[in-house]
Amino acid sequence: MSEQDQHFLNLAIEEAKKGVSEGGIPIGAVLVSKDGKVLGSGHNKRVQQGSTVLHGEMDALENAGRLPGSAYKGATMYTTLSPCDMCSGACLLYGVSRVVLGENETFQGNEQYLQSRGVEVVNLNSADCKKLMADFIAEKPQLWNEDIGI
Amino acid sequence: MSEQDQHFLNLAIEEAKKGVSEGGIPIGAVLVSKDGKVLGSGHNKRVQQGSTVLHGEMDALENAGRLPGSAYKGATMYTTLSPCDMCSGACLLYGVSRVVLGENETFQGNEQYLQSRGVEVVNLNSADCKKLMADFIAEKPQLWNEDIGI
Repeated sequence: MSEQDQHFLNLAIEEAKKGVSEGGIPIGAVLVSKDGKVLGSGHNKRVQQGSTVLHGEMDALENAGRLPGSAYKGATMYTTLSPCDMCSGACLLYGVSRVVLGENETFQGNEQYLQSRGVEVVNLNSADCKKLMADFIAEKPQLWNEDIGI
Repeated sequence: MSEQDQHFLNLAIEEAKKGVSEGGIPIGAVLVSKDGKVLGSGHNKRVQQGSTVLHGEMDALENAGRLPGSAYKGATMYTTLSPCDMCSGACLLYGVSRVVLGENETFQGNEQYLQSRGVEVVNLNSADCKKLMADFIAEKPQLWNEDIGI
């Protein structure tokens, strides 16, 4: 784990905690350019905005705003939880090169598919990220199921 | 092609035309439940809202609002254009069972991947859908490239 990766994962965790403080689902994400600049950060907005598409990673992409395709190349998506099919697909659409995730014990997206499409996937196996989700799911299991289409 | 499929594709085309009338990208979509009820419809909002995540299919999912996972099972996503990785991923997340697309000559998403994950994919090969995109891309090629991350 590089210091830079831990730094940006910490920013994603801060986003997840903002989500908790708003009564939302505690998943956060930060999109970082090839040269280490934060392009956008965000967190799941299902509760706050009634949104079905603004998962953490999607909210980070949305908050990055309209960018030329070149801005995403070499970029890394930091996310507190292994990305679902939608968020993985969004990373593929824009050509995000790397996904660094906090954990994949609570939920495992299709990391192999991302890798098969040339995306580097790194799991930082963060106890903080696992605790955020464990606490949330213990409290609101139905909300969590809704978020992953179950 | 069933009459029902053509009917709902026509609704998606109407959404795409709304997009044109707003100066936006002419891609529309309609999410229809197993029993033939429109759950949500929408169109690409890149120009109108500066959104990088609201492709037509995503906007339809967003406008359908928060639903239990069961609502998506057996549902069909009608879209005027073959869905990109993001929109395909969103259909997979929610367990949409079928994707009916207007055309895939302008752009071909990863239809094979959808099929490999158990989604039925039907291409209605619509001249209307092709013309909407051809006219748009001739006029605004750069905007189109931005929308598909090029």
